Amino acid sequence: MSCIFCDIITGKAPAQIVYQDNDAVAFYDINPKAKVHILIVPRKHIASVNNVESGDQTVLGSLFLAARNIAETQGIAEKGYRLMVNTGSNAGQIVYHLHMHLLGGGVFDD
Amino acid sequence: MSCIFCDIITGKAPAQIVYQDNDAVAFYDINPKAKVHILIVPRKHIASVNNVESGDQTVLGSLFLAARNIAETQGIAEKGYRLMVNTGSNAGQIVYHLHMHLLGGGVFDD
Repeated sequence: MSCIFCDIITGKAPAQIVYQDNDAVAFYDINPKAKVHILIVPRKHIASVNNVESGDQTVLGSLFLAARNIAETQGIAEKGYRLMVNTGSNAGQIVYHLHMHLLGGGVFDD
Repeated sequence: MSCIFCDIITGKAPAQIVYQDNDAVAFYDINPKAKVHILIVPRKHIASVNNVESGDQTVLGSLFLAARNIAETQGIAEKGYRLMVNTGSNAGQIVYHLHMHLLGGGVFDD
């Protein structure tokens, strides 16, 4: 089963990588919905939040550390930013490799 | 420093608790923005994503396991749901105890 995010992680598919550590990789969203729109993905292929398992805590928690670091680098830490993880069709999940959207550079009032 | 979410966790402040484990507590948002709107908070007081530290991975990753469990209990796992963590004023963070919004029961098309 091919997965575009797994391919990005292994370098088989192109992406503008902005951050990586042992657990997570982050790159720009190709259809940005905000001035700053970055996707943070676990290196481990987890299809969605519905598929997280006991034992995945460390890799999932690492997404938040990645987000903190990226927000600092992008200069949006102080003013603020939104992290979003969509699961399933009602939430518009398109790629079934769990991913955290980091959205910043504007005001989110909803 | 008083924190309303710490008070909810310790039972000093009222809330309709829907889930709890060793790392996380979840309760209904008092101003729901969706049919299902639940807040999942770490027992550990972490002000925001800007304040997460190396070593917080397990407690933060547990928020996703809590979300998976709650989505199943609420009957929204299959159709889908959105998880959101707001940081700072631009994202409308009001309570400075990191919290994950679980939103479900409708379609999110943005």
